[in-house]
Amino acid sequence: MRKISAIGIGAGDPAHLTVQAIERLNDTDVFFVLDKGSEKQDLVGLRQEILDRFVERPGYRVVRAQDPERDRTPADYRKAVADWHRLRTDVYEDMIRELGPDERGAFLVWGDPALYDSTLTLLDAVLARGNVEFEYEVVPGVSSVAALTARHRTTMNQIGRPVLITTGRRLEAGWPAHVDDVFVMLDAQCTFSRLVDEGLEIYWGAYLGTPDELLLSGPLTTELAAQIRSTRSAARERKGWIMDIYHLRRPTT
Amino acid sequence: MRKISAIGIGAGDPAHLTVQAIERLNDTDVFFVLDKGSEKQDLVGLRQEILDRFVERPGYRVVRAQDPERDRTPADYRKAVADWHRLRTDVYEDMIRELGPDERGAFLVWGDPALYDSTLTLLDAVLARGNVEFEYEVVPGVSSVAALTARHRTTMNQIGRPVLITTGRRLEAGWPAHVDDVFVMLDAQCTFSRLVDEGLEIYWGAYLGTPDELLLSGPLTTELAAQIRSTRSAARERKGWIMDIYHLRRPTT
Repeated sequence: MRKISAIGIGAGDPAHLTVQAIERLNDTDVFFVLDKGSEKQDLVGLRQEILDRFVERPGYRVVRAQDPERDRTPADYRKAVADWHRLRTDVYEDMIRELGPDERGAFLVWGDPALYDSTLTLLDAVLARGNVEFEYEVVPGVSSVAALTARHRTTMNQIGRPVLITTGRRLEAGWPAHVDDVFVMLDAQCTFSRLVDEGLEIYWGAYLGTPDELLLSGPLTTELAAQIRSTRSAARERKGWIMDIYHLRRPTT
Repeated sequence: MRKISAIGIGAGDPAHLTVQAIERLNDTDVFFVLDKGSEKQDLVGLRQEILDRFVERPGYRVVRAQDPERDRTPADYRKAVADWHRLRTDVYEDMIRELGPDERGAFLVWGDPALYDSTLTLLDAVLARGNVEFEYEVVPGVSSVAALTARHRTTMNQIGRPVLITTGRRLEAGWPAHVDDVFVMLDAQCTFSRLVDEGLEIYWGAYLGTPDELLLSGPLTTELAAQIRSTRSAARERKGWIMDIYHLRRPTT
């Protein structure tokens, strides 16, 4: 039976890799790499750096495929994502066919494979089609949320209180009910700007764990929001891409 | 200046340790261990196993202290936790005094130090008192949430949807607004039992990553809720303690 591992490789710092992840890397015959276009060559390079640093077993293969383009400004967000997933399922199925019958393949997933990543959903979708057979396992990783809080030395939750992880799109509707700590991912629109001067704190980070890491934090004032936006857009222009995340906290004490 | 590291050591499996955590373990002069009473000797043993397996540098010291007792059934939850934190701040301050002026100390924290753990809050509380000076850093780890989803091969979020992490106590108030995926920690009351036959799925795990790991999942029926409760109480009786977590999902498609 073909075996596949979805391996969480942490949020950018190769030192985030776990012992389990490194063991699995060294047990892998084929690494699957999705090429997401030139803007993310840095990330492809970081993945290769991880292989170079940690894989001692010679002779592994790398199977590359082109990640289908995604509509970034769809009228219907859910449908656009579903369409994109269907195209990606085709790509994943084709890649998995490159595995010999008793080989192990691996997807290296930034952060933790469970959080805002589509690899597991796509593996399930390929299995559901029934065209190729395989078993898969998940190797947990250090999430971008954990990386962000570690760098800011903050907790996710206040004592006994809940935590929400959400998207910029959902935060547009305003501050969520019944929570005081919100982590926001995938927010190209800097939605935090709508929540200035309401007694919130913000902890923002980009390129976490990499030499390009940027961190800003403090009371969420108009000035700090503007500083984060300008820092963000300057960095994005300089590097051609950005990955960032932020934590909004309403202090309860 | 004294240095302290709060090191996330993952959710039970020593192989969850990251490269960064192992590097830090080998750079530590003094490990601080809170003795939480006989019921958690297994966890103290697991910590020692991690030191034995990964620390190559000889001659480190271990400073032990007794963790103050916590009122588990307080009338005022927040006040009880705050009182307990004050007592623990005394204990932490005393432990940190054991560090020489240029030494590095470390707290080994289960899961990720940011999530439902008090180490960072206590370090900040000791610093705020101003009686001892030190710098501290956080080494992120694999959280129990990541360990749970990895074992069940589930995602935290559904596509483009938010995720709530909360406590059993808060779930007593009913299903939270505007979310379809809820992770529940610290729930000795099995609050999921109140939510049976409402179209939810449950993914439960205990002693994650250890040889005693228990996993149950499926549609949250009266029968499955009873099975989790009986499995949980039998395991707790057998081992004298339990650490568990669960994920409730309301499928959106």
